[in-house]
Amino acid sequence: MIKAIQDYYDDDFSLCYGCGRLNPKGHQLKTYLKNNDTISKHTPKNYHIAIEGFVYGGLLASLIDCHGTGSASIFYARENSIEIKNYNAPRFVTGNLNVNYIKPTPLQKELLIKGVLKEITSRKVITSISIVVNDVICVTGEVTAILLPDNFGK
Amino acid sequence: MIKAIQDYYDDDFSLCYGCGRLNPKGHQLKTYLKNNDTISKHTPKNYHIAIEGFVYGGLLASLIDCHGTGSASIFYARENSIEIKNYNAPRFVTGNLNVNYIKPTPLQKELLIKGVLKEITSRKVITSISIVVNDVICVTGEVTAILLPDNFGK
Repeated sequence: MIKAIQDYYDDDFSLCYGCGRLNPKGHQLKTYLKNNDTISKHTPKNYHIAIEGFVYGGLLASLIDCHGTGSASIFYARENSIEIKNYNAPRFVTGNLNVNYIKPTPLQKELLIKGVLKEITSRKVITSISIVVNDVICVTGEVTAILLPDNFGK
Repeated sequence: MIKAIQDYYDDDFSLCYGCGRLNPKGHQLKTYLKNNDTISKHTPKNYHIAIEGFVYGGLLASLIDCHGTGSASIFYARENSIEIKNYNAPRFVTGNLNVNYIKPTPLQKELLIKGVLKEITSRKVITSISIVVNDVICVTGEVTAILLPDNFGK
């Protein structure tokens, strides 16, 4: 896998405002495997503000959400020896999203979003996520992601 | 209080992408007291999509977040007999946001967001939130909101 996991979702699963490659208005988050963990990067717009100088918490929750489902896809494929290619990446949706705002997240900085596998079953993946700016952890979270069946919505 | 609680935040606290009256690019969520509980309404844009026909979970988390902080302000003012007027509404930020996606939330519908007070202390308010479409609960959540000092950022 050389591209982001979101670039391997089926077209029908690529419309997500947070991470879909086919949603031109969305954030188009891209999640990669790096060693044993996952990373994404995102620089918020200047209007994604909570209070002067700090990033809007709803955006941070959204990034954790999409990084969590993307990471779930990566970890699930690895666990099940699925060779990722166009466009077979397993698609997960969120069952639970839990976010802790540890410190205010500064605007106008690139956010590093990291994912670590916590638990995996036949159709559920739980990941621990953190958002880091200049080596400081600003937000932590946990995403419980549920595998969508291939024929969902068809 | 006849306007939404967000219309009574100080200008400096009204920039939020989710609910700030001074953020023209944002959602401008408006939260009202109704009997003992709180309500907001929001109709997502057609590009706020997760999968065809359903609302993006990051937006739903964002609405719960801002409804939670707005509700915290309303409940805190009521508890402390603060008469809300221009522009003295207490401003809360989110410490923890926990969201359960119960059912896919249909697009192109008005979402009703409801808040119920769960716990209140001298600087923390916890609310239980639900997002309802056509009388069906699609999402539930809990927001732990922390009171900002008046002089925050000044």
